[in-house]
Amino acid sequence: MPQRPRRSQDERSDETRTALHRATIRLLLDRGYSRFTTADAAAAAGVSRGALTHHFASKEDLVVRSVAQDLAGVTEGLRVFLAEGRGRRRGPDELVDHLWALMAGGLFYVTMEYLPEARHNAPFRERLLPVVRDFHAALDALWCSVSDAHDLDPAEAQVTLNATLCLMRGMVAQSVLKPDESYFAAMLDHWKAHLRALFARSAGAGDIPGPSHAGRHHSPPVPNPEVP
Amino acid sequence: MPQRPRRSQDERSDETRTALHRATIRLLLDRGYSRFTTADAAAAAGVSRGALTHHFASKEDLVVRSVAQDLAGVTEGLRVFLAEGRGRRRGPDELVDHLWALMAGGLFYVTMEYLPEARHNAPFRERLLPVVRDFHAALDALWCSVSDAHDLDPAEAQVTLNATLCLMRGMVAQSVLKPDESYFAAMLDHWKAHLRALFARSAGAGDIPGPSHAGRHHSPPVPNPEVP
Repeated sequence: MPQRPRRSQDERSDETRTALHRATIRLLLDRGYSRFTTADAAAAAGVSRGALTHHFASKEDLVVRSVAQDLAGVTEGLRVFLAEGRGRRRGPDELVDHLWALMAGGLFYVTMEYLPEARHNAPFRERLLPVVRDFHAALDALWCSVSDAHDLDPAEAQVTLNATLCLMRGMVAQSVLKPDESYFAAMLDHWKAHLRALFARSAGAGDIPGPSHAGRHHSPPVPNPEVP
Repeated sequence: MPQRPRRSQDERSDETRTALHRATIRLLLDRGYSRFTTADAAAAAGVSRGALTHHFASKEDLVVRSVAQDLAGVTEGLRVFLAEGRGRRRGPDELVDHLWALMAGGLFYVTMEYLPEARHNAPFRERLLPVVRDFHAALDALWCSVSDAHDLDPAEAQVTLNATLCLMRGMVAQSVLKPDESYFAAMLDHWKAHLRALFARSAGAGDIPGPSHAGRHHSPPVPNPEVP
């Protein structure tokens, strides 16, 4: 068998950091911020404590840089999703389903873990601010591409799509203590109708993809507080 | 001077519990769940550790019962707000401003503190579930009174008003790392227009109170992460 090429020091460092980023996001999701330690992250990533402390100065440092990596991946995934729309347009239903799968599939559970810490730990919050600012700037660019593709009023589209994510943040938060799939499905249906009306005002209504025929069988993933 | 009447044991116990409930909500808001101890609550309430442990079995017990008391007060405040509407109707703008002042004024910051704990601590979550279920049932009754007063379709009103609170939950969560007053004001304006359209479909549009003349000068309180 051919020998695996020897990795450079930089490559090994990249792999170590990536493994630690992934383990950190996973542990935030599974155990939460307050129950999470750098020792757990090293063990879950299969690296030594020394390797961790070589790359990351503290728990906060590890979390901030892991969140930055995670959000960069989410941004890239959204860009690809929109670019891959059949023809040039994604309908509002597809957009809502995709964003909800992302938010309820873990993204906002992770966010909920570090927000309380950010509220009470000013240096941590200061380091997170530019990370989320970069993410919001990327979202703004994506929303511009949606409004361009659908000839929507850019300002109205921006506000509506930001509200879409805020609605979903609130739904995911509520789902922790209200595990009620039909409750959230009804809100998503309401919101899709709202977006369809917005999109229809700018285009021939016949152009806007409506609800899929599968309907409720394609109901969105509702997070399970036990196994988010 | 007349002597203050001697309080009964029951009255003193009620006062002790109420002082501890209030101190707990205040400390959750100011310091957060993970930094909060029962010793802090006793000190802030001005009661002895023994008095606290006489009434509350644990930190979780204190938090659950404080949240239950707090939500009962919020429910009663909402009931009074709706009952006090001039004539029989509150317009959507008033409703949105009132709910946002409530959520961004502290209610949802407190919620964000205990949600991550509820996600990872099953006995704590089990005790919170009926508390929030009672709160949601009270909200449902309030939403029914709104749909009755405005002759709205009850099912559509219910979903829309639940979405109003989810949107606000998400906005408050986002405000922790995006302190941008105009961003949230634009979303609230968007949402008010959405509710006005819903209300207008069921009534003469002229009946629906529009934006106040003060406009942006009455912009909603945007929470300050430093002093929520």
